Amino acid sequence: MYQDHTITEIDDFLTKSQAAFHQYKNFSLKQRAGFMRTIAVELEALGEELIGIAHEETHLSEKRLYAERKRAIFQLNSYADAAEQGNWLEARIDIGNNDTNLPKPDLRKMLMPLGPVVVFGASNFPFAYSTAGGDTACAFAAGCPVIVKAHPAHVKTSTLVARAIFSALEKCKMPEGIFAHIYGADFKIGEYLVKHDIVKAVGFTGSYAAGRSLFDLANQRKTPIPVFAEMGSVNPVFLLPDKLGIDHEWIAEQMSRSISQDMGQFCTNPGLMIAVKGDALNLYIKQLVQNIKEVESAKMLHKGIAKNFNENREKAIAQDDVEVIYESEIKADDEKGIVTIATVLGKSFLNNHQLHEEVFGPYSLLVICEDEKELLAVAESLEGQLTTTLMATPSDITHHSQLLNILREKCGRFVLNGVPTGVEVALAMHHGGSFPSSTDSRFTAVGADGIKRFARPLSFQNWDDEFLPDELKNENPLNIWRTVNNELTKDTIS
Amino acid sequence: MYQDHTITEIDDFLTKSQAAFHQYKNFSLKQRAGFMRTIAVELEALGEELIGIAHEETHLSEKRLYAERKRAIFQLNSYADAAEQGNWLEARIDIGNNDTNLPKPDLRKMLMPLGPVVVFGASNFPFAYSTAGGDTACAFAAGCPVIVKAHPAHVKTSTLVARAIFSALEKCKMPEGIFAHIYGADFKIGEYLVKHDIVKAVGFTGSYAAGRSLFDLANQRKTPIPVFAEMGSVNPVFLLPDKLGIDHEWIAEQMSRSISQDMGQFCTNPGLMIAVKGDALNLYIKQLVQNIKEVESAKMLHKGIAKNFNENREKAIAQDDVEVIYESEIKADDEKGIVTIATVLGKSFLNNHQLHEEVFGPYSLLVICEDEKELLAVAESLEGQLTTTLMATPSDITHHSQLLNILREKCGRFVLNGVPTGVEVALAMHHGGSFPSSTDSRFTAVGADGIKRFARPLSFQNWDDEFLPDELKNENPLNIWRTVNNELTKDTIS
Repeated sequence: MYQDHTITEIDDFLTKSQAAFHQYKNFSLKQRAGFMRTIAVELEALGEELIGIAHEETHLSEKRLYAERKRAIFQLNSYADAAEQGNWLEARIDIGNNDTNLPKPDLRKMLMPLGPVVVFGASNFPFAYSTAGGDTACAFAAGCPVIVKAHPAHVKTSTLVARAIFSALEKCKMPEGIFAHIYGADFKIGEYLVKHDIVKAVGFTGSYAAGRSLFDLANQRKTPIPVFAEMGSVNPVFLLPDKLGIDHEWIAEQMSRSISQDMGQFCTNPGLMIAVKGDALNLYIKQLVQNIKEVESAKMLHKGIAKNFNENREKAIAQDDVEVIYESEIKADDEKGIVTIATVLGKSFLNNHQLHEEVFGPYSLLVICEDEKELLAVAESLEGQLTTTLMATPSDITHHSQLLNILREKCGRFVLNGVPTGVEVALAMHHGGSFPSSTDSRFTAVGADGIKRFARPLSFQNWDDEFLPDELKNENPLNIWRTVNNELTKDTIS
Repeated sequence: MYQDHTITEIDDFLTKSQAAFHQYKNFSLKQRAGFMRTIAVELEALGEELIGIAHEETHLSEKRLYAERKRAIFQLNSYADAAEQGNWLEARIDIGNNDTNLPKPDLRKMLMPLGPVVVFGASNFPFAYSTAGGDTACAFAAGCPVIVKAHPAHVKTSTLVARAIFSALEKCKMPEGIFAHIYGADFKIGEYLVKHDIVKAVGFTGSYAAGRSLFDLANQRKTPIPVFAEMGSVNPVFLLPDKLGIDHEWIAEQMSRSISQDMGQFCTNPGLMIAVKGDALNLYIKQLVQNIKEVESAKMLHKGIAKNFNENREKAIAQDDVEVIYESEIKADDEKGIVTIATVLGKSFLNNHQLHEEVFGPYSLLVICEDEKELLAVAESLEGQLTTTLMATPSDITHHSQLLNILREKCGRFVLNGVPTGVEVALAMHHGGSFPSSTDSRFTAVGADGIKRFARPLSFQNWDDEFLPDELKNENPLNIWRTVNNELTKDTIS
């Protein structure tokens, strides 16, 4: 059971996917949205059984899993709404004319689906960023068929979720090739999919090593394709002096929860804190350690992740000058991880790239800077991040304009007085920081703008109204927003 | 004079560019637009001198050069208008709340500049797609400094245009690092620029070989950056039977002009025509040859291009089964090219990939298909194209839905009963087809949407109004369109 598919079987899936694309791309926005909403219903209908199996496979609590399924359902429904609303299409019309002096062609442009999309799900989000997760929902919304490679760490969960999608396909009378669910524990299968000529884009959530390798494969193709790999980051949190002086307890409360929640297994986990030394910082450290002591150690997602965490943790705390200020008493076994807080001096951090690397799990490193100048140097030294967070009062902000200027360039989301974990599903969300946190900082993996990852513009020049897609017809039958002669409007064109 | 810059000099330019970025990115849209409009004025002010020098360097007619400068000026002004209008920013706001049941963070997102951009100009557009051309204008609009590598084939022209930009910098009191003009005839200099850590994006117009090589270099960086390379294509024109029967004279008139204008030196030159054999096609061929005879052979842009054209032409017409039905009498010298029309049978075209390759210059190949089935096979066999054109009546369109379905996937612009040359500068233009016609089918090199090539979204979470960029403040002081809680509006937020 769950045996890897053969190349012959995979070729067959892809051929069907290609054929289905030519049908599905011509389905209306309404039809696509209806299909997505049906998947949401079917996902809900899997009930307790799905939660039980996912709990068994991932060790995530049932409470968390119920919440995550709700999130996946919300994504499907809200991206369906966005797809139907049509703003993502970026419909633009420049009306032509036959003036003899300055004739202008009629140009009408909108986003069109790229083609079959391969999705590699995330081990830490078995529902919201896996089989029927954000990437799949965005691709369906854009008009692309999806080929999911089931995550080997939750293959039963994935199979059950796939069943919900197949059932929705049937209920909506969609061509079967719109969705394929492939078993491929062997990396070669992922490689084969990314290199396949039929595949036109890839969504991936996972480690830097795997994401970069898919990105490289895709770019080396004869016809390169986009890979949207969300690869995680250390999500630095800067604790500024005025705020630290006033609010160290509140910050410690927020941070201890953010570091340890679900064993820190989030790509937005705050793995790095940075502050200038001082009494307020000492009080913060004390409070943070006290809070984090209350965290119960729990099983990590799977043995591979636990092993990586404990190894990376060991490596990190073995670096020169790193001091462990708290570690949970539970000794590492092959399933649990040791909750850890460590400190290091700014100058050591600046001289040791190893300390800039993510330790995926319940670990956070506090960089203690000598002064503001060193704090700036640390900020400047950081790689691209999904998020950057400031704990700061208005006065801190006013006095740190250079820091803000630097940090803005390092991240995709800039949080003030909050924590980076908890990625809201909203249009104004951007979840896609600069490399290496993601492969393409221009696109988001969360929120309805993620639909645009799987589309490209096509201009129609001088087409008769009757042959244009509904989205671009004079009458605006779908009543969508369009930019007509450079102005946004829902008006019809006479 | 015009000696290649040294690495030390280039490093100095780039360091200044990086410093200028942190200033320029914070300049208002109005300031950026003002700067761009000043460049337009300065470009115009170069007067006849510029036209004379460009004519000397490129052999393009003065009439064409005047028109092209006008285009470049229009681009600068219209992209300035678009920049200021602010729709390109994709401002989105999801207002937060502190409900105890379902608290939501406040999220506000807009596009932000990527950083210093390197521009490689086009030899065939010394004004509109070179030093102060579309890529430069888009990067300035987005808030990015620009480093232009002067095209060796029109280095004097480039130097003069750069002078206009420097003069605008001074008049607008902009930091000098916003623009740099680098001499680098040696390919290694281009390579050095693309690999440099300070450089965050690349705009390029030219050959597939050079574009692909820059794309590969950029993707192999430790932190890959986007390369927007517009590499040309054969721009297939499908002549459908009903239209051919009715309108062969009109089609021949359009096509002969499109093939030969400015010695066919356009990336949208129709290098391929496809039709089913028959009497109407024979009449078309006769008419096309008759029209094209009237074209006077002229010097090509430079000796390198003339040499490439004549070699590629020789190679193309030496392929099995290719028949030259017209070539201009002027023998090839080292500056002129032989205007050529050739034919080949559909089955030979299908079996010979060489015939799918662009012959940049006044050359077009007519593929004569046995029947509709072969026509479809030819369509299916095509690589990605900047444009695809249909010569078709409504009845043709109705009877060729499968062909339309295929062609839509092959191009960035789909022209009906027109010619692919003449790329209108308009928001609804898309000039960026599927690979290999461009490296990124999702972005356009022409029209104000090209600004988005040099920007990425940034989300602000929970920031106080006073510290947000004006674009995202509650009051909407710039009066731009924003998507607030999923609805497009110019309203203020109370």
